[in-house]
Amino acid sequence: MDFSKFSPGRIVKAPENILAPEQMREAQRARRSFMGKALAMGAGATAVSAAAAAQGDPAILKLPAHTTSLGQPVAARGYGVPSQWEKNLQRRESPGLTRVSAASVSFTPLQGLFGIITPNGLHFERHHQGWFDIDPSQHRLMVMGLVREPRVFTMDDLMRLPSVSRIHFIECGANTGMEWGNVAVPTVQYTHGMLSCGEYTGVMLSTLLDMAGVDRSKGKFVLAEGADGSSMTRTISMEAAMDDVMVAWAMNGEMLRPENGYPLRLVVPGVQGVSWVKYLRRIEVGDQPFYTKDEVVHYIDLMPDGTHRQFTSVQEVKSVITTPSGGQVLLDRGYYNVTGLAWSGRGRVKRVDVSFDGGRNWRTARLEQPVLPKALTRFNVDWAWDGNPAVLQSRAIDDTGHVQPKINQLRAVRGTRSIYHNNAIQSWKVSETGEVFNVQVY
Amino acid sequence: MDFSKFSPGRIVKAPENILAPEQMREAQRARRSFMGKALAMGAGATAVSAAAAAQGDPAILKLPAHTTSLGQPVAARGYGVPSQWEKNLQRRESPGLTRVSAASVSFTPLQGLFGIITPNGLHFERHHQGWFDIDPSQHRLMVMGLVREPRVFTMDDLMRLPSVSRIHFIECGANTGMEWGNVAVPTVQYTHGMLSCGEYTGVMLSTLLDMAGVDRSKGKFVLAEGADGSSMTRTISMEAAMDDVMVAWAMNGEMLRPENGYPLRLVVPGVQGVSWVKYLRRIEVGDQPFYTKDEVVHYIDLMPDGTHRQFTSVQEVKSVITTPSGGQVLLDRGYYNVTGLAWSGRGRVKRVDVSFDGGRNWRTARLEQPVLPKALTRFNVDWAWDGNPAVLQSRAIDDTGHVQPKINQLRAVRGTRSIYHNNAIQSWKVSETGEVFNVQVY
Repeated sequence: MDFSKFSPGRIVKAPENILAPEQMREAQRARRSFMGKALAMGAGATAVSAAAAAQGDPAILKLPAHTTSLGQPVAARGYGVPSQWEKNLQRRESPGLTRVSAASVSFTPLQGLFGIITPNGLHFERHHQGWFDIDPSQHRLMVMGLVREPRVFTMDDLMRLPSVSRIHFIECGANTGMEWGNVAVPTVQYTHGMLSCGEYTGVMLSTLLDMAGVDRSKGKFVLAEGADGSSMTRTISMEAAMDDVMVAWAMNGEMLRPENGYPLRLVVPGVQGVSWVKYLRRIEVGDQPFYTKDEVVHYIDLMPDGTHRQFTSVQEVKSVITTPSGGQVLLDRGYYNVTGLAWSGRGRVKRVDVSFDGGRNWRTARLEQPVLPKALTRFNVDWAWDGNPAVLQSRAIDDTGHVQPKINQLRAVRGTRSIYHNNAIQSWKVSETGEVFNVQVY
Repeated sequence: MDFSKFSPGRIVKAPENILAPEQMREAQRARRSFMGKALAMGAGATAVSAAAAAQGDPAILKLPAHTTSLGQPVAARGYGVPSQWEKNLQRRESPGLTRVSAASVSFTPLQGLFGIITPNGLHFERHHQGWFDIDPSQHRLMVMGLVREPRVFTMDDLMRLPSVSRIHFIECGANTGMEWGNVAVPTVQYTHGMLSCGEYTGVMLSTLLDMAGVDRSKGKFVLAEGADGSSMTRTISMEAAMDDVMVAWAMNGEMLRPENGYPLRLVVPGVQGVSWVKYLRRIEVGDQPFYTKDEVVHYIDLMPDGTHRQFTSVQEVKSVITTPSGGQVLLDRGYYNVTGLAWSGRGRVKRVDVSFDGGRNWRTARLEQPVLPKALTRFNVDWAWDGNPAVLQSRAIDDTGHVQPKINQLRAVRGTRSIYHNNAIQSWKVSETGEVFNVQVY
């Protein structure tokens, strides 16, 4: 694509407070960011960029302090932190979801991230009774039930076992849950931010079950239980437990973060986050499902006929455009690299299509390689915005053939009173002013 | 492997100061860590673990505070930090290498990391004139020389171009450079810690060269120049520049860290770190190599016959065992998961073999998948330590057939007065006391 035909499209990151559109424009003018300075340069900015060498861009001709003076020696902290210029990129709460001080959610700022790895400091959180930074020397993992030899493991015991490292996404089952009935929140951080991806290191659960001598003739289900006050408990089928479930202590190269379950959590690839029990303390093998509170009373889907669906697990194929997305503002017509994420709890993403006219026409996006199973996949596609209103959507298809549904298709089956497992196609409307809104279009 | 036959091998992380062996033992006793507590339990710890349920392990029977009380709501900081229990895991300087306050190195603590992704806060640093946290709105990238249309890009301009995300290692050419003549430093953090790996996001350099209209008939070489005081400059061949070189702004999902070049650095897969110019400000296309200071005076290899080798680039195939490694102490005989990293600047790692007897016998290690080109690969192999002295080595082979050499083989060709490109096999000696030392054995 010949980008020189287009003036450079400029995009403003979403303001961090939820503001009315007029306030958003005001806020972006006031904000001291490089995007704000580009705005100040006005419509002639293309000319400025291309001719800067001739006209004498002071940013080039006047050598900055960092070119003419000594900088700092190695970072004062032995554990580095992001640039001061990035301090507005934060995970954020939604006050309406924090009912009791310790039952809370914080959302990953997907609009400002890149690739598929989620920086550990921006990993989303979901707590039922708060989080702790617990002493790993006191932590124990019990393996019991229909096993020949019940075991208790210390972290020491676990971390010397054969370990594996796997890249997987984790998505809360309630991600996008506020959108079931109608548009509820304005930015992708809030519509889709209970989603992260990392390289987990740990021991396969199958290794631990083998060590304890699991009785496969009777043991058909596994209970996982956490040590925090909410004692999260979930049933996992023996097939899954012996397949790709991990007992993990590390994420993206270092030990888990306390708010993500340090020192130990379960990793259940492709399954909703509640099964990824944090502060994992007990594994019990049984011959029936355990019917825990966290799968028969909570985390159930209310169906249109009044029944409810229990034991839902798999996060179905899903995608979302992260830029341009709600709350951002396109300042110019022109070329944009439209980017987003796709994933499937059933395996690999096979294809992502993107529409710019609300789902009438679709173009296939580029998938970044390698495409990994039950992990995030980054997609990119070219777009030249002509200044007219547009509705952007992405639709993912996974390698089992499942296709991400439209929101009305999903409602026809699931109704509007569900909380969980909303994997519908997301629509972002770009208005003539360049403002981007969360809309529901079908 | 039936782990129950062995008492659990216990390993103590290397103390963070460089201590004499007697001091190391003292330090590990005093250190309040979960490994220290396991040591305190003594030799009967296997029995404790296996029978804890029967005897009543207080760590299980007495419900801890985090099980019986409310925790914190979402992390107070919108950008999280590691557990307090991990605060000894830091990147560290070597005072002898910090001659002028701003010319400095900090080493990644490989002994305490997992998988292949390096946490951004522990990414190694190498500065010639210090580092800065520069204002991205003022940063410019010039593309000039043998091009039809010289261009100046702002960060705005660059970040809306078609982006790619790729996982690559970066290794300083001087990594392991202190070991050329003899054993010099005691731990893997110092022998191999100028090594990190991440998912980089940016635009392909070829895209920028195409936009500027590079003249391929005349333009054979590319100069890359940085904006910091040391104005690092390196020549890159046009073939490499048009192949997989990236102009990157993000690492592991977020913008680069200031000490790693925020907001922009060059990514030259497989090539030594000096070419990965930080604070990238200029790309110039020329018809000859540029013979910069950073490739003809510095970063050269002094050969045994007195000549020196210029323009070395590729980091040849290399590996190292990260645990057990120098400074660690094995407290018990028994089973250990021996783990390490392997990489090659020429492509993929094909195989890693591990020896426990100083290179006489070798076993092939497991490679964690996917094995990516010019990225770190994690390997793991089982070992049952019988308490006798042992010398552990790893040897990598890449997919071009290059084999990691022994240190004496390398010296025979390169002499002992080189600094750069030491990719020799690393030996760690486990003594009868369980202490692990850096040794050179061939």
